[in-house]
Amino acid sequence: MLKTRFTELMGIEHPICQGGMQWVAKADLAAAVSNGGGLGIMTALTQPDPDALIKEVERCRTMTDKPFGVNLTILPSLKPIPHAEYAQAIIDSGVKIVETAGNNPGKFIDMFKAAGIKVIHKCTAVRHALTAQRLGVDAISIDGFECAGHVGEDDITNQILIPLAVDALDIPVIGSGGFGEGRQLAAALALGAEGINMGTRFMATKEAPIHDAVKQRLVDAGERDSILIMRALRNTSRVFRNTVSEQVAQIEKEKGMAFEIGDVAELVAGARGKNVYGTGDVEEGMWSAGMVAGVIHDVPTCKELIERIVSDAEEVIRGRMAKLVA
Amino acid sequence: MLKTRFTELMGIEHPICQGGMQWVAKADLAAAVSNGGGLGIMTALTQPDPDALIKEVERCRTMTDKPFGVNLTILPSLKPIPHAEYAQAIIDSGVKIVETAGNNPGKFIDMFKAAGIKVIHKCTAVRHALTAQRLGVDAISIDGFECAGHVGEDDITNQILIPLAVDALDIPVIGSGGFGEGRQLAAALALGAEGINMGTRFMATKEAPIHDAVKQRLVDAGERDSILIMRALRNTSRVFRNTVSEQVAQIEKEKGMAFEIGDVAELVAGARGKNVYGTGDVEEGMWSAGMVAGVIHDVPTCKELIERIVSDAEEVIRGRMAKLVA
Repeated sequence: MLKTRFTELMGIEHPICQGGMQWVAKADLAAAVSNGGGLGIMTALTQPDPDALIKEVERCRTMTDKPFGVNLTILPSLKPIPHAEYAQAIIDSGVKIVETAGNNPGKFIDMFKAAGIKVIHKCTAVRHALTAQRLGVDAISIDGFECAGHVGEDDITNQILIPLAVDALDIPVIGSGGFGEGRQLAAALALGAEGINMGTRFMATKEAPIHDAVKQRLVDAGERDSILIMRALRNTSRVFRNTVSEQVAQIEKEKGMAFEIGDVAELVAGARGKNVYGTGDVEEGMWSAGMVAGVIHDVPTCKELIERIVSDAEEVIRGRMAKLVA
Repeated sequence: MLKTRFTELMGIEHPICQGGMQWVAKADLAAAVSNGGGLGIMTALTQPDPDALIKEVERCRTMTDKPFGVNLTILPSLKPIPHAEYAQAIIDSGVKIVETAGNNPGKFIDMFKAAGIKVIHKCTAVRHALTAQRLGVDAISIDGFECAGHVGEDDITNQILIPLAVDALDIPVIGSGGFGEGRQLAAALALGAEGINMGTRFMATKEAPIHDAVKQRLVDAGERDSILIMRALRNTSRVFRNTVSEQVAQIEKEKGMAFEIGDVAELVAGARGKNVYGTGDVEEGMWSAGMVAGVIHDVPTCKELIERIVSDAEEVIRGRMAKLVA
């Protein structure tokens, strides 16, 4: 048992939160994580519309009676997304925990807090975490340079970011990005975090509703198998390294400051449009995966994974670390 | 007391090694670190010639009777450097610990091992660490993306790199890059490291033989005050963010793949030629500083710094972490 301010606040057993991953974080995965004692998170925008989200929350409730949450990510997109309607659907669904992420979440945080919902805000910078705290969120998930997806533009790693966030904030902080095993959980706790958030690691679990070939590719991958793209547009994304993502990175390099979204728009839209998670064609599309791939070596159940990470962390603390100070 | 395989191997009190920093790591700093219970390291190439290095080692011996080492970094340079003569001077000086870094250190490692010297090899990738272990080095200082100076091209952070290195190697591993405080030492130990290496943090100490204005600038700086340059040449360097380094980065961006060293050669040579450490004109020149600047808040003596970091780490382990598993 690792009891922290985060486990207490969320009413969960283990200090492990599952990241809100687009197309992956459905009810199946969230329920499995929550049943494993962690905090499962469903992603609102993975559902085609707000009504479907309400149904997906109901489906999750049929699979677990433990706490779980919904992620709402607010990012600019070509196709307008009715964020406010999704936010209202979250409230209407009766969910009691929300993870917000992205730009200007203020008005949504207000809505959620008014509805008595606990809010975890995920961000990549201490200054954004301070803003979110001022807006009334209950916890911060601070996302280091290690993370998959939107890494921000500061490139500060968890080793620096977690202690700085912990010192700057009063509310509990969990570390996010690059986490996948027990020693890392122990390290996050040493840095002052009250737990960890894991995204990519939960993709390589039995219950993740994605093709087995994707899971196997994560097992086979090393720490160098992620790549940053879209830096030139200050919209940097860490994705799995494959032919497509390397091609995009190469075009960015070649164009330098002259790079425009138009130079890769078709390529990216085509690659993102490919349903890698469904087909398992890991080389064909563009999909998020973090640096953590280097420490992923198997495809356990969520419960097995969570219990192993916690028990390994406890062993590090009780065994190795206690001996070092003895 | 934090006794580890690294403290045992080196015969030192605390698991903290000082990084071999060009122009900074002279006898004064190395002796102060060793007197503080850490492992002080002088940089061979900071001395104008091999004879001067032998004299500097003798000077260090007048200041400390504790173990200290010499760093030999092998990198391509415009002006040819007689690395083999420096290596012989290190052996002739009677120093018993050497830190190697850079490219193809094989023949130097052979020389040092034949002379009964303990060798720590610093590198930024697990595959290079494995090669160094095969060549017979005694310990690895694994350098994460956080580090100042040559960060390599993989951009893997310590959170991932340390556990991977520890799993791959039999010899002791210390973590390097971004380290400056006790929670981070505890985290490194949790990840499996047997200690930490600190460079930039030791610049902001009373005994560092550099201008006070540089030390103060590190105290004032935040985590975002370092910047990567020379990526386009696959010779990436993390330096302090100022007008000059931002100008170089901007030129790299603008040129993209067309970037050549000629585009910035004059600018870089001029900036590197400015003696920032001597004059304290921190905005004028190009100087290395890592992400750790964000956690540097004062200018203590080396002994005060080392003892504080160790005692804070012990407190984290005995206090916070022990309570979490209770």
